[in-house]
Amino acid sequence: MKKEQSRPNILVVNDDGVTAPGIRNLIEAVKEFGNVVVVAPDGPQSGMGHAITIGKPLRFDRVHLYEGVEMYKCSGTPVDCVKLAVNRIFKGKKPDLCVSGINHGLNNSINVIYSGTMSAAMEGAIEGIPSVGFSLDDFSEEADFSHCIKFVKTIVRQVLDHGLPQATLLNVNFPKGADLKGIKICRQANAKWAEEFDERKDPYGRPYYWLSGVFQNNDKGEDTDVWALENGFVSVVPVQFDLTAHHVIPILNSWTFND
Amino acid sequence: MKKEQSRPNILVVNDDGVTAPGIRNLIEAVKEFGNVVVVAPDGPQSGMGHAITIGKPLRFDRVHLYEGVEMYKCSGTPVDCVKLAVNRIFKGKKPDLCVSGINHGLNNSINVIYSGTMSAAMEGAIEGIPSVGFSLDDFSEEADFSHCIKFVKTIVRQVLDHGLPQATLLNVNFPKGADLKGIKICRQANAKWAEEFDERKDPYGRPYYWLSGVFQNNDKGEDTDVWALENGFVSVVPVQFDLTAHHVIPILNSWTFND
Repeated sequence: MKKEQSRPNILVVNDDGVTAPGIRNLIEAVKEFGNVVVVAPDGPQSGMGHAITIGKPLRFDRVHLYEGVEMYKCSGTPVDCVKLAVNRIFKGKKPDLCVSGINHGLNNSINVIYSGTMSAAMEGAIEGIPSVGFSLDDFSEEADFSHCIKFVKTIVRQVLDHGLPQATLLNVNFPKGADLKGIKICRQANAKWAEEFDERKDPYGRPYYWLSGVFQNNDKGEDTDVWALENGFVSVVPVQFDLTAHHVIPILNSWTFND
Repeated sequence: MKKEQSRPNILVVNDDGVTAPGIRNLIEAVKEFGNVVVVAPDGPQSGMGHAITIGKPLRFDRVHLYEGVEMYKCSGTPVDCVKLAVNRIFKGKKPDLCVSGINHGLNNSINVIYSGTMSAAMEGAIEGIPSVGFSLDDFSEEADFSHCIKFVKTIVRQVLDHGLPQATLLNVNFPKGADLKGIKICRQANAKWAEEFDERKDPYGRPYYWLSGVFQNNDKGEDTDVWALENGFVSVVPVQFDLTAHHVIPILNSWTFND
């Protein structure tokens, strides 16, 4: 990793893999701001959450996909990519910014928990790097990211200018389509997936199951990411990795745990 | 899933797999409280975080390991196990309690993020089931869980009596050794892993990397789970899956996102 003195070092990661159009668009959007280094999974890693690889070793190799871009593919999860980047490529010298995505598919609301994109950004934040995950409401390989680019630049510029409060990161989601109303700061909507399993039989008559589900929004608030996206805004949710439910501590202290 | 009318239905999961001593101890501890159904991975799934299986199908099969215990092994992640249990075994009728573990290894502090044990419990909570994850500071297959059992029973009894506040779950960690001082309600310590990668060469001369790391506690508070465990207490941290950093919303609203 070579650094030009005055320019920020920017780590780019994703969970859709090195060849995803989303990461190409993210690289294009952020490269004017600094020295870009890309470390991404060598294949799709959607839905990996905050998984890390501990039962087997990791590989990573330089790849040459885009002119002038230092890029590596890694056999592990999105979180592994961040750990490898910080330790083996930046060699412990923290990058100035970590951006993840642009994911093919929304990571709003409860999806933040399952998302490899957001977990990679969260790992960046745990490392003390200002970190942002970006996601678009379009799973297609032919997804059009062009309307996202100016918002990515605005958000990156603000984060490089201000930094981010300690132990927090940003979760940015884009609706499909060109006529966006602007950026809205939101909270995570109270929504969940009502899962369904599609049962099939293999050629030997044994059942197997495909996980699917229906997204259920139980939150009527107009300050949520779900509301913002449905109403044509880019949603920005500040996220934290202190999972303590601080408001519950006094409740538990009133229970009888010790005789 | 058959239910005796008056007894609670209890879902038992873990991330170390169906054959782990930890899950056997958890089954033994909770079976007096209700009808136990076990759904666990068919092999180790430590460090899987909140991963779900979306690129390939799942299998699950009945196993007969312990007399009188309804038990299934699943080819997926700990979170998949919970989803499959709720949808295919309980058939949408929510269990009254979900317990996960007892994990071989601590899931205190930032480990809650990487932990399959805690992610399974969190998935239970997302489903609206009162859920608790249990972990012991001992990775060994020969780990002694006997000192944990009375505390598991106390906590399960309290949770069955009181329920848990909406959208929260409990993260319970046990120190090694018999002379515990009791249960302490805590917050998640501000700690992280400083990762290291052990580089080796394969027989063809190509490098590969084993993830390892050193746990770094940067939190001097005496109200943390790390402090409690170091001082001989069972730590209980209430956990939430609303990751919104609510305190950051007003800060972001002062930035210039829209011209």
